[in-house]
This record gives sequence, structure tokens and C-alpha cells, in this order.
Amino acid sequence: MNIPDKVVNRLTLYHFILDDLREDELYISSSRIAKFLDIDNSQVRKDLKYLDNPGKCRVGYNAKELKKAIEVKLGFKKTRDVFIVGAGNLGSALAKYDSFKDYGMNILAMFDNDERKIGTTINGKEVFNIQKVGNLAQRLNVDIAILTVPKEYAKAVANYLAGSGIKYIWNFTPCILDVPDNIKVWNENLVGSFLQFTNRDEVEDNNNDN
Amino acid sequence: MNIPDKVVNRLTLYHFILDDLREDELYISSSRIAKFLDIDNSQVRKDLKYLDNPGKCRVGYNAKELKKAIEVKLGFKKTRDVFIVGAGNLGSALAKYDSFKDYGMNILAMFDNDERKIGTTINGKEVFNIQKVGNLAQRLNVDIAILTVPKEYAKAVANYLAGSGIKYIWNFTPCILDVPDNIKVWNENLVGSFLQFTNRDEVEDNNNDN
Repeated sequence: MNIPDKVVNRLTLYHFILDDLREDELYISSSRIAKFLDIDNSQVRKDLKYLDNPGKCRVGYNAKELKKAIEVKLGFKKTRDVFIVGAGNLGSALAKYDSFKDYGMNILAMFDNDERKIGTTINGKEVFNIQKVGNLAQRLNVDIAILTVPKEYAKAVANYLAGSGIKYIWNFTPCILDVPDNIKVWNENLVGSFLQFTNRDEVEDNNNDN
Repeated sequence: MNIPDKVVNRLTLYHFILDDLREDELYISSSRIAKFLDIDNSQVRKDLKYLDNPGKCRVGYNAKELKKAIEVKLGFKKTRDVFIVGAGNLGSALAKYDSFKDYGMNILAMFDNDERKIGTTINGKEVFNIQKVGNLAQRLNVDIAILTVPKEYAKAVANYLAGSGIKYIWNFTPCILDVPDNIKVWNENLVGSFLQFTNRDEVEDNNNDN
């Protein structure tokens, strides 16, 4: 069953909360989860219905079982190997974002065209010449790339990746890629996120006089 | 009228496309926009109905008018001043992400507690001692903070920001903040994004044997 994106997003946030509970907090209610995120209790209960064996009992949810149910449903334990293409600030930040590993994302290598970066290591991940993407993608059986190159190179690099065996691109550039139909692109739209955030009534009102 | 988050997100992507059109491309059809993003034409047309004066005519949409209509509706031209709290890799990457400025986000200053970073400048933005947040927030009339500190400091720093006059936190840490009710938090859930992306059927199927 396909889980709606918003639900996947919230289930991940619930997992953050569960991960942060004290050892002696064995149970958690949906209303407590809701309060943390400032959302409706009914929303949380609806989301948790997507899970198998969420550990529901009289006093709430068994925290460990609920955590495990989310992990199983979202596939945290199914490791996906990925490449980061673009070893600039954002690429480096993502390479150092250790939480990804806990959630099944394994960054195998990084790529750049800058001679000063090639051969260096960022958080244990080696930076290779971008011309080696195809060879390494095949050898290591990797078909997911995180694209963090500067905007002006985004399209050209995406097409290069498409020709190198990459099938999925997580695009962090503010640029719509124009790749063959068999390549799936997921736009991580940071500008859109900011506008979503600031388009909420509260922020709008508060900035009226700017 | 409140526009749904998903629509805000897509309108931003449409704007990226319009921004990238050649000078001589005066008109664009909804189906061409849809094709770029690999989504349904009907979805694009529905989204564009949120706009005032989108420039619809017989041959499609007037590209310039459509672009302007998105800018007006999403408030691109309404500048919001923000602080970045945490001048590590992610904070630096966001400070260098020049596209934000085009979409109304103006990063005024950065904050950290690391003596080696304080006083330095990242892409023209000075890094201040985090103890100065309250003072500068008041003087510069800033109430939005982007939180990019390491996970283990996230909660403490968020509470410190809440006590310093910050009202809106764009949270990039994989941690649910526990701030007073009057503080609005927007969780930029990168782990959730990755899981949304990889939970799509196609990626699932392709990684079965991992």
C-alpha cells in the first residue's frame, strides 16, 4: 500500500519523538505525540492506522512497539546506497548528517569536478572525480544520486547522471531537471518549504509592515 | 485564502521552470509544465486556479504574467529577514544558497557558540556569538530563525531562541523541539523526504534484493 507523502513525513517525526523518549517512558498516548507537533490528536491516530502492530493498549501505545512498527512500515532497516554529486557546502552538510544512516540511507561516495576536492574525504566518504560516476554506480550497484551542484550546472550534471546508470535523483538544486522519462526526480524544494512556512497566516500577519 | 502546502510547493517549482525559459518563449502550456515535472496536466491547471491574473490565453499562459502571478500570490517580493542559528556545514550551505534571496528570504546574520567561527563571515553574513541573538533580534526586528545546530543541542538552543524573541523556527535538525505554544516550528524533515522518495513503489521494487 502506498502511504501518502504527508503521512510518511509525520510518521518520521513521530519516530524522532519516540527515539527521544526516556528509557522509563514505556507508553505514549497519541495526544502526547500530537502536542509535541502541535497537530490534532485525530490526525495522529489516523496516521498510526497505517501501521501493522503499533502496540496499542489501554494506556496508549507501547513506545518500543510503535517505534518498531514505524521502522518496518517505512523501511528504515532496508539500506539504500546513494551517491552525493557535488561536494560543496550542501553536499558536505548532507554527508555529515549522520541521522540519515539511522534511517537507511547509506552514502557510499561523493563526486565533484573540482581537483582540490577530488581525493579528499568528508565524514569518511571519499570524493571522486565526477567522471567515475558511471563506473562506480555499476560496480557498487548504486542508482540513487543526491544532486547538490550549483544551480548553473544542475541540468548538465543531471543528464550526465542519467547516462551513467543513475535512475533516481534527489534534487537539492533550485532548478527543474530535464531528464529522460525513465529517470525519477524528487525535488527537495527548500524555497517552497520556506514559502509554505511563511505563507501561513500567522507569519503573514506578523510581517505586514515589512 | 490559505493555499495548501503541496500547492505552494508546486507553484514554486512552476516558477523555477518559468524562470528558466528562454527570452523568446512568450507562452507556455499547462501540459508543458506538467511534462517537466512528470505530473498530470489537470493538476497543474487546478493549481494555477489559485492565482489571480495568471495570464491565460488561447495558446497557453503568458509566461511573464504567470510568473508574476505566482510571485504575488506566494509573496516572493515580501522580504522576510531571518537568522541562521548554527554556522556549521548546513548553516553555511543555506547561507550560500543565493536562490533564497530571490524568493524573499533575507539572511541577516548567523550565530554560533564556537569561538573560531564567531566574527567570521559566510557569504557576506557575519557570525555572531549566540548570546547576542536576543539583542539583535530586537534591534533588527527579526523573529524567524533557521535552526541548523547539531541534534544534541537542538532542544536547548530552541528554548533559548524562544526566550530571545524568536517566534518562528525553521527546524533542520532531526529532533522534535519542545518549545512554548506561542513559538511556531516548521520541521524540515530531510529524513522524511528521503523516505517519501524511496517509499515510492518504483524505488522499493528496485531495492528488493538489498
